Amino acid sequence: MWKEENNTLYKRFQFKDFSEAFAFMTRVAILAEKHDHHPKWTNVWNTVEIWLNTHDAGNIVTSKDHALANDIDALI
Amino acid sequence: MWKEENNTLYKRFQFKDFSEAFAFMTRVAILAEKHDHHPKWTNVWNTVEIWLNTHDAGNIVTSKDHALANDIDALI
Amino acid sequence: MWKEENNTLYKRFQFKDFSEAFAFMTRVAILAEKHDHHPKWTNVWNTVEIWLNTHDAGNIVTSKDHALANDIDALI
Amino acid sequence: MWKEENNTLYKRFQFKDFSEAFAFMTRVAILAEKHDHHPKWTNVWNTVEIWLNTHDAGNIVTSKDHALANDIDALI
Repeated sequence: MWKEENNTLYKRFQFKDFSEAFAFMTRVAILAEKHDHHPKWTNVWNTVEIWLNTHDAGNIVTSKDHALANDIDALI
Repeated sequence: MWKEENNTLYKRFQFKDFSEAFAFMTRVAILAEKHDHHPKWTNVWNTVEIWLNTHDAGNIVTSKDHALANDIDALI
Repeated sequence: MWKEENNTLYKRFQFKDFSEAFAFMTRVAILAEKHDHHPKWTNVWNTVEIWLNTHDAGNIVTSKDHALANDIDALI
Repeated sequence: MWKEENNTLYKRFQFKDFSEAFAFMTRVAILAEKHDHHPKWTNVWNTVEIWLNTHDAGNIVTSKDHALANDIDALI
């Protein structure tokens, strides 16, 4: 579940290990470039946290964020 | 199943789409560097083909190839 | 230089090592998904070979191939 | 320059665009697995920030962190 707080969509993803986490990141990177919309994201070992908002709209959550969030969820 | 022919271990992997195939390739790339042993591999869309042999041993199949093949299989 | 032969655009890229070659492949993968046009490509250690043609046009070279080739060259 | 503060090695890397930043991340991912030592890292568009310390040593900076930092610097 993405959580909307402080004008940001946030979700935490957990994987078996680093390799699986980074494979997921590679797929999110491809999506980000396709959407021309890029996350703030942090990785530690098997955990990936993603924050989405729309800089050009004044750092609020827009339909661009929901669209990318949906496509990220479809990877899992 | 890896097939040994012409002094090479060969296997073909098929995925749902390009993104899934390339995520797999990223994980294999990480393994290859860990093993310090690198495949010949080809990708077209959702398909990845891998050929393994050991250059330093005269391009034959060695335990290095079987070890990498096993670790690649463990990704799936 | 891309070489057009047998209805395919072909180019060979050489890098310092596997890590540099695979970083290039990751950038090409991102471009391929953006173009919705995917190469046949092979990697061995520090070498990447790419073949481009357009399946939907009957496996000939089209403007889609030239466009992707140009964007790949711009990475270097 | 890596900065050591709060028992962590920290460095910020800036690239031309997202694609170049993510290619760097792929190379760092490969290094991390080779070292069996993984960073905390954050990416936003063309910027990558990396924090290193050693969990098993009680979250302080050890030679494992300096070794990984050196190998990351050698990528640039």
